[in-house]
Amino acid sequence: MPDVYSSLILPDVRLMVQDEDRHGLTEFCRVLHPVVIANILEELEPREVWVILDHADLRLRVEIFEYVSLRRQMELVEKLDKRRLSELLEEMSSDDRVDLLSRMPQDRVEDLLPLIAQAERNDIRRLLSYDEHSAGSIMTTEYASLPADITAEEALKRLRQQAPDSETIYYIYILNRNRRLEGLVSLRELILAKPEASLSDIMQRDVIRMRVDEDREDVAQELARYNFIAMPIVDNEERLVGIVTHDDAIDVVQEEATEDAHRQGAVEPLQDDYEDTPLLTILWKRGIWLVVLSFVALMTAEVAHRYAKATSRDGSRAHEVAGFSQSDPSSDESEVGVADDATDLTSSLIFLFIPLVMASGGNAGSQSATLFIRMFALQPADGAVPGTGFSVDRELVLRELVLAAVMGAVLALLDFVYVLIRFDLARATAVGVTVFLIVILGTTAGTMLPILFRRLDMDPAIMSTPLIAAIVDVLGVVIFYEVAMIIF
Amino acid sequence: MPDVYSSLILPDVRLMVQDEDRHGLTEFCRVLHPVVIANILEELEPREVWVILDHADLRLRVEIFEYVSLRRQMELVEKLDKRRLSELLEEMSSDDRVDLLSRMPQDRVEDLLPLIAQAERNDIRRLLSYDEHSAGSIMTTEYASLPADITAEEALKRLRQQAPDSETIYYIYILNRNRRLEGLVSLRELILAKPEASLSDIMQRDVIRMRVDEDREDVAQELARYNFIAMPIVDNEERLVGIVTHDDAIDVVQEEATEDAHRQGAVEPLQDDYEDTPLLTILWKRGIWLVVLSFVALMTAEVAHRYAKATSRDGSRAHEVAGFSQSDPSSDESEVGVADDATDLTSSLIFLFIPLVMASGGNAGSQSATLFIRMFALQPADGAVPGTGFSVDRELVLRELVLAAVMGAVLALLDFVYVLIRFDLARATAVGVTVFLIVILGTTAGTMLPILFRRLDMDPAIMSTPLIAAIVDVLGVVIFYEVAMIIF
Repeated sequence: MPDVYSSLILPDVRLMVQDEDRHGLTEFCRVLHPVVIANILEELEPREVWVILDHADLRLRVEIFEYVSLRRQMELVEKLDKRRLSELLEEMSSDDRVDLLSRMPQDRVEDLLPLIAQAERNDIRRLLSYDEHSAGSIMTTEYASLPADITAEEALKRLRQQAPDSETIYYIYILNRNRRLEGLVSLRELILAKPEASLSDIMQRDVIRMRVDEDREDVAQELARYNFIAMPIVDNEERLVGIVTHDDAIDVVQEEATEDAHRQGAVEPLQDDYEDTPLLTILWKRGIWLVVLSFVALMTAEVAHRYAKATSRDGSRAHEVAGFSQSDPSSDESEVGVADDATDLTSSLIFLFIPLVMASGGNAGSQSATLFIRMFALQPADGAVPGTGFSVDRELVLRELVLAAVMGAVLALLDFVYVLIRFDLARATAVGVTVFLIVILGTTAGTMLPILFRRLDMDPAIMSTPLIAAIVDVLGVVIFYEVAMIIF
Repeated sequence: MPDVYSSLILPDVRLMVQDEDRHGLTEFCRVLHPVVIANILEELEPREVWVILDHADLRLRVEIFEYVSLRRQMELVEKLDKRRLSELLEEMSSDDRVDLLSRMPQDRVEDLLPLIAQAERNDIRRLLSYDEHSAGSIMTTEYASLPADITAEEALKRLRQQAPDSETIYYIYILNRNRRLEGLVSLRELILAKPEASLSDIMQRDVIRMRVDEDREDVAQELARYNFIAMPIVDNEERLVGIVTHDDAIDVVQEEATEDAHRQGAVEPLQDDYEDTPLLTILWKRGIWLVVLSFVALMTAEVAHRYAKATSRDGSRAHEVAGFSQSDPSSDESEVGVADDATDLTSSLIFLFIPLVMASGGNAGSQSATLFIRMFALQPADGAVPGTGFSVDRELVLRELVLAAVMGAVLALLDFVYVLIRFDLARATAVGVTVFLIVILGTTAGTMLPILFRRLDMDPAIMSTPLIAAIVDVLGVVIFYEVAMIIF
């Protein structure tokens, strides 16, 4: 596996950078696959990265740079001077550079654009204008195109000239004078054709195409269905404006699957990989759903409350049983002591708040499990990617616990205030403390169980959302009773 | 969109088959893209399909056939005579035909193999021997390969001969005499090279490769990471045994994402698309998890029971409150009447069984939502695929309701027996009836909410597992109280 390889040679690379070993670094850039080099660059300081990339010519430098993760690319360009950055951007493929520019601060982009050649600049502005989830946002404008009225031999000659600026030359699009898409010739068909054959005779007509404003997910799926290397993208006048290549389509499929997995686990989709997303962002994307779900759970408590009251028409005793003896706001606004009959209360408390307590723990745990399971799914089975070993697991688990403490505190406060207003201080305290503890416990279970399963070489995905929730439910009851027994 | 197109011309195609319109059917096969034709074939009777395919020559027939879904392929070959089937199999690409054969009855395969040419037969036996989730199971053996010691011009000439039998000729693998992988030349590099250049000079060395027994998911991910059109697959002796192409990799990514989504929603992964899977299979794949989750929920009830007993050391009253007054088996084995104090019981019942009832409804609902959301995610946004309109939604919803009734009955029986043994008949009835109803209601919510969201042009995935569970929880409490009030 190349990844094991890259972590093995990382120390050597560091040494070469320290010693400014020109020969060594040039060889390093020349011999290894750009993906492998990019992998290694993820682990180095930006300063070290630029020392290394200076030993590659511009074309290779850009190729390596394009394989670096977007988050890392942003770190790398942060302190790069404008001249070198514009040089890099000019050479980058049109889709990759727009991805980078769309993440950079607006004023920096406006600063940079004048340094970039007119044609490239127009291309950038056009691509930047497309909606984030449209075909336009993932297409490249660097396609190979030819007119219909030339021979196969002539076509091959012209193709050789276009090759350096084309993302793929395996599909050649046949355009008329107005750049309308008329046909398609694959390079395979082209080299199998007689040299004197006219493109208009060998080209496929009625080419499958998609529009620039269609959903990028649909484009990826259609490309997959037709087994295409690239999908041509046209505007409203059927003019070819770009192509979406197979490698971008597979990225879209993976990103959309990740988004869906996160949504399914009640996490607002993250823009970056989980392990690259800042703590505050994750807190927000999870917290918002935990709060929404807590409100639904509070509604459940309200409904149960109303039913309990309705079924206790016969008087105080059954009412007392349901736990409203002295604090039902509709009959008595006071928060007087309720601790005089501790065991009764302990039991009756549960009846209203157990679903709320369980939901908080189960939901927080499901979120953790979802994030970890999807992260594992995107990593090779042997975990050999640099930065995914045991030490990183530990770091991520610690981060989860910090998150859990914050989210637990917020939910506990929310529930505390609700129970305090509707019932009394003792119950509010019991619920608040339990929710805080169960969120931490749920998160721990949601984090550790997938990790455990992966280490045992089993599929971590067995730890489904409902299973995590069910396991945390058991723990929830235990904690709630223990807390309630202490408080009353 | 080609899909709208295909549903529009379906009636015409049926008519042409009825009239045995030879000219029309030949044109139909010749003009349309094989994917579009395959789409239309999904909607026709097997007999009609073969009438149509007879109007395409063998090569085109196979190409169309390969785009037909695997489930449909199996239906189509079921009644095909051995001679025609073996002809079809011989012409099919090596990975697709093994996919089909591995799903056919063992004795039929053994019947067929003697009719297939020796070389192809060996190929089939070898590919059939690989593990279902390995690289070997998705690779094709039809790759282009050349020796290193020829010129670019000679290479192009030989490539033209290999082209008909190669899945892709855009990557050419350079093998030594023992078929060990020595290098890689892309067709792009080849046509850009000087005609007299030797392949050994232009080829890339240290080719990224993967082993035949590696996980197919890892192969797909590595291919995506390197932006490859194909990933070479080698055996333990570094001999090239096949390639995995980009289109198969994207399929694997989608299949694995579907598996993970189903697992996340506590559904054992289905082999086919949800809408193509038989009722009994779905029942089993969902039921098994519902039962497991119910057992965990029963554990929760047990734990709550024990705590309730522990906190009622002071005597009968608190114990009564917790709902064990007359039926706790540890104190009294009888199932005597408990209806004399209806309201008390109604309240106290909830306390033990609410989590169980809620879990059953929430889990069943989550499963439905998971299946529908993933099905929608794999369909284009406008739902224009033939067979995904409103009528099909209705059919699938009806199927869900049948499933819900069966699963609800099984879970209700399970819970009934448990509560009857541990408590009494009245409580057992209340729990059983409620679980049955809540499973049906949960399934309805889990089915209708994603459908509703899609019709409103919102992302159905917002209906996360925890949100469905939370919504069903509210309904669960309502139903449980209503049922309990009727019974007691």
